[in-house]
Amino acid sequence: MISRIPITDISPAVFFGGEFVAVKAIAGETISVGATITIEGHETLTAEVCLYNSKNKMVDCQQLSESWSGTDRFEGTVTVPSNGDFYFVVKASSTSQYRTVNGESDKYPVRADRDRALVGSWYEFFPRSEGAVKKSDGSIVSGTFATATKRLPGVAAMGFDVLYLPPVHPIGYSHRKGKNNSLDATEHDCGVPWAIGNADGGHDAINPELGTMKDFEDFVKAAGKQGLEIAMDLALQTSPDHPWVQTNPEWFNKRADGTIAYAENPPKKYQDIYPINFDDDYEGIRNEVLRIIRFWVSKGVKIFRVDNPHTKPVHFWQDLLAIIYDETPEVIFLAEAFTRPAMMHSLGKAGFHQSYTYFTWRTSKFELTEYGREVSQTTSAFFRPNFWVNTPDINPFHLQSGNPAMFALRAVLASTLTPSWGMYAGYELYEHRAFKEGGEEYMDSEKYEIKVRDWEGAAKKGLTLAPFVAQLNSIRKAHPALQRLRNLVFHDTDSDAIIAYSKREGKDLVLVVVNLDPSFAQGTTVHWNMAALGIATQDFKVKDLLDGASMTWNPHTFVSLNPTRPVGKVAHIVQVTI
Amino acid sequence: MISRIPITDISPAVFFGGEFVAVKAIAGETISVGATITIEGHETLTAEVCLYNSKNKMVDCQQLSESWSGTDRFEGTVTVPSNGDFYFVVKASSTSQYRTVNGESDKYPVRADRDRALVGSWYEFFPRSEGAVKKSDGSIVSGTFATATKRLPGVAAMGFDVLYLPPVHPIGYSHRKGKNNSLDATEHDCGVPWAIGNADGGHDAINPELGTMKDFEDFVKAAGKQGLEIAMDLALQTSPDHPWVQTNPEWFNKRADGTIAYAENPPKKYQDIYPINFDDDYEGIRNEVLRIIRFWVSKGVKIFRVDNPHTKPVHFWQDLLAIIYDETPEVIFLAEAFTRPAMMHSLGKAGFHQSYTYFTWRTSKFELTEYGREVSQTTSAFFRPNFWVNTPDINPFHLQSGNPAMFALRAVLASTLTPSWGMYAGYELYEHRAFKEGGEEYMDSEKYEIKVRDWEGAAKKGLTLAPFVAQLNSIRKAHPALQRLRNLVFHDTDSDAIIAYSKREGKDLVLVVVNLDPSFAQGTTVHWNMAALGIATQDFKVKDLLDGASMTWNPHTFVSLNPTRPVGKVAHIVQVTI
Repeated sequence: MISRIPITDISPAVFFGGEFVAVKAIAGETISVGATITIEGHETLTAEVCLYNSKNKMVDCQQLSESWSGTDRFEGTVTVPSNGDFYFVVKASSTSQYRTVNGESDKYPVRADRDRALVGSWYEFFPRSEGAVKKSDGSIVSGTFATATKRLPGVAAMGFDVLYLPPVHPIGYSHRKGKNNSLDATEHDCGVPWAIGNADGGHDAINPELGTMKDFEDFVKAAGKQGLEIAMDLALQTSPDHPWVQTNPEWFNKRADGTIAYAENPPKKYQDIYPINFDDDYEGIRNEVLRIIRFWVSKGVKIFRVDNPHTKPVHFWQDLLAIIYDETPEVIFLAEAFTRPAMMHSLGKAGFHQSYTYFTWRTSKFELTEYGREVSQTTSAFFRPNFWVNTPDINPFHLQSGNPAMFALRAVLASTLTPSWGMYAGYELYEHRAFKEGGEEYMDSEKYEIKVRDWEGAAKKGLTLAPFVAQLNSIRKAHPALQRLRNLVFHDTDSDAIIAYSKREGKDLVLVVVNLDPSFAQGTTVHWNMAALGIATQDFKVKDLLDGASMTWNPHTFVSLNPTRPVGKVAHIVQVTI
Repeated sequence: MISRIPITDISPAVFFGGEFVAVKAIAGETISVGATITIEGHETLTAEVCLYNSKNKMVDCQQLSESWSGTDRFEGTVTVPSNGDFYFVVKASSTSQYRTVNGESDKYPVRADRDRALVGSWYEFFPRSEGAVKKSDGSIVSGTFATATKRLPGVAAMGFDVLYLPPVHPIGYSHRKGKNNSLDATEHDCGVPWAIGNADGGHDAINPELGTMKDFEDFVKAAGKQGLEIAMDLALQTSPDHPWVQTNPEWFNKRADGTIAYAENPPKKYQDIYPINFDDDYEGIRNEVLRIIRFWVSKGVKIFRVDNPHTKPVHFWQDLLAIIYDETPEVIFLAEAFTRPAMMHSLGKAGFHQSYTYFTWRTSKFELTEYGREVSQTTSAFFRPNFWVNTPDINPFHLQSGNPAMFALRAVLASTLTPSWGMYAGYELYEHRAFKEGGEEYMDSEKYEIKVRDWEGAAKKGLTLAPFVAQLNSIRKAHPALQRLRNLVFHDTDSDAIIAYSKREGKDLVLVVVNLDPSFAQGTTVHWNMAALGIATQDFKVKDLLDGASMTWNPHTFVSLNPTRPVGKVAHIVQVTI
């Protein structure tokens, strides 16, 4: 039955698998709530949204007001006070001279995860490349956790929060891939880290070439001292040499001849990878994955970057993540699901804390605006975006020219549009060569070989984006507005080459203007939506957080940005200082 | 938990008061069903929607297919076989060489009401006017059920299915309104039928001026013989003279001085009407209304036109209508709620079978297209429209010129856009005088006085739209396509003066082109969406159901319509005869 005052069409609400699942939040985050509330006759009403914790104690209650008179649509906000599980209820009340009547909605769950679920700067490196040495005979000595530890201060200096490592487990030998994905590996080829498992162990073991379990634990601790949290790769697949192949053959698909089927995405064949079959012994494989996660959690890992979760059953993730949350709610899962929107959204609803996104391919003002609105508004209840500028799998076309201004502007966009962004090592060196024209694989991809990079040499020559990245991450840390997702607002500009947006959190108001053209100076008038900015005056003072310049802007500010060197300015990131 | 294959975002689904309430349908109606279905990896899947009756027996099961490749959105249809309660479930299945896995959605309820809930041509007259006689001294002798019975063949000849009567109960004397809503009624004034109740009785009594209860029952039977079903007005309010005022003073609002409050919509005052208070004795008033409805149902009334349901609590209607449905599922309720969309929608979700609409004020091609799409698609799961061209309360501005072509084209639109339409007596005589400029009240409104109309004289002079209305209703009866709501498709035209749409049901395909300009001939090219029409050929033959003309049309047909007399053609209503 509907309540005395009907309250319907509640937003945000995430219906999934026969129930409302939790709206995503972090402590301190403000959630916009909407409801359609109708009262008979010409009665007026008051409405509020009240937030309760899991012990049914009210922790916040805020008034809702009709956004546009006559629509019966009421809107307001509620702020989540701390981590944990909450629910909100919309209530309405109407008082006339004869009576007070009330209405109440159902309960809608909200879950506040720890901040890192929403906010973080991610860096990815292959530990075997860090500290690797090229010998005079051309052969390469692999880096180890010990040598990679020396790179931690450099990563920390760029201001990153999370260091994500591709799989660190033993790598299979059967059908091992060679350089540039070749089928004929030599004995010197190090193998693809995602081909997990050999006689040295599987998902709970450390690749001996990187060191011992102790070395890994020391590395995690050393990273922590630098303010870096380690994100581990969780790739639920095996090489043909993985121990499971012997101990649990029922976890794999068999061909008619009884042999185990390797992964295929016709016409592509992945002879070095066996996919898992989750259906024949669901509980067995789930319990084993739980054991593995618990094991690494005990080693200090609290973030997992899940490889291709969209190739595994969604209900498995919902089941698994719920169990882990109950045990260790601080553990965060990032979905690496570059697939269709519906599946990406399902994974978010199933419990993934955040996800890789299409940002990596969104380049025009129109695309960025549309996608920015989608992730900050339309899907923010169940899908937290992590904007990566590149990955070992994706050397996007727009970077393949190698123009440093493009690398800079993409970093600005990723680091300011949403609160989580990521960069894969080599980006700061403007690495851009493609394996072949028309493709987005890196030439001499690090997936197949060890990379020896000259960080110090590049720094000395100034041929690195690292200082700019450090500046971006420093600005992010100093500005709460950049640590929020739902507060993104776009503003009109007269040029498709220049995008403008703002973010506000409390008194912190940050405006960003980016020249999307890496090759030419562009100028245009930016039409700031003053109501959205919450600025009552005409002129307002701003300070550019990149170059320290102080300016006075107004609702129609002409902005010009020249990305060409030596000036090389791709963006304004300004703080309003009225 | 989500099922093995996630199935989400089911449509149609009507969430109201903490549960999914029934999607509206009639027997034989085909419902479009959509679902987002995601499967991991690169598996392909098959999906279906299955309909079950209340005994959990499957009665239909149809395949769903991905509407656009890569969207994971699956669509299909299911057909409701008979009246009663059903539910549908979306199922998905994926078979590879290793396994078959399945998914299943929740249950979504569907209710098939009797046909008249969706399809009907309604006519409204005041029985006291039918057979009323103006005497030589200017005084008027009221019509009665006996005299009104003589008008039934005329109404039936126009092809109407439902005859709706304003309240037939005793009318209050206190503060009785005079002609044109004047405050000083004379003893000759007949009163407003909605001011219900006097010493002769209340909602369960017949106004003695119309006859006896036996006369009413005979009238209902006589109407039935003419194929006309009577719709009774259910106006839950009283005159100050209603018996309830004495027997149940707790059902009314009291002022501080203890007197009962009359209705107000400041600054308007309705001293002749007492509104009901539903809150102080909710069960008492609900049981009394149940008693009244049951009483009239026992007298042969199976349709109630509910006066201003939006001024009563929505939960009251949900409660009341559910009880009546359980007892007598053939009883239909029409909501006369001219109010904000959210309330109109809430009443539909609460159980009203159909509703008056904004059609009466939608005149431009843009408005009609937008509104037509809204009622046929967006809201069709819970809101069945009844398009009235006029009502005793609404003499819309576009009719006030009295141009017969406007009356004709509005009748075409109302009778072909949606399966239920209505007309209030006098429309066919082009009655159009407004009480005052800028308002939509009729001059000398029948709400306040008895109207003596010369039906025969108008027919003899040809000054009546009745034959055209008869033709429209005859076309509606012959064409199943016009008896469906969800099948409305609009087609592009190059002129804003000409609107074109089509409806298909099975093999019956009807195309309608209307000149919205009642004053001038208009011509334009209509761009028929051939895929939507389901016509594979280029040329196709049509027969105009209004004038019998045979034509050959094609995907870009030039159409001209001249509404001016003596030709006076406002529309093509054609049947495709390929």
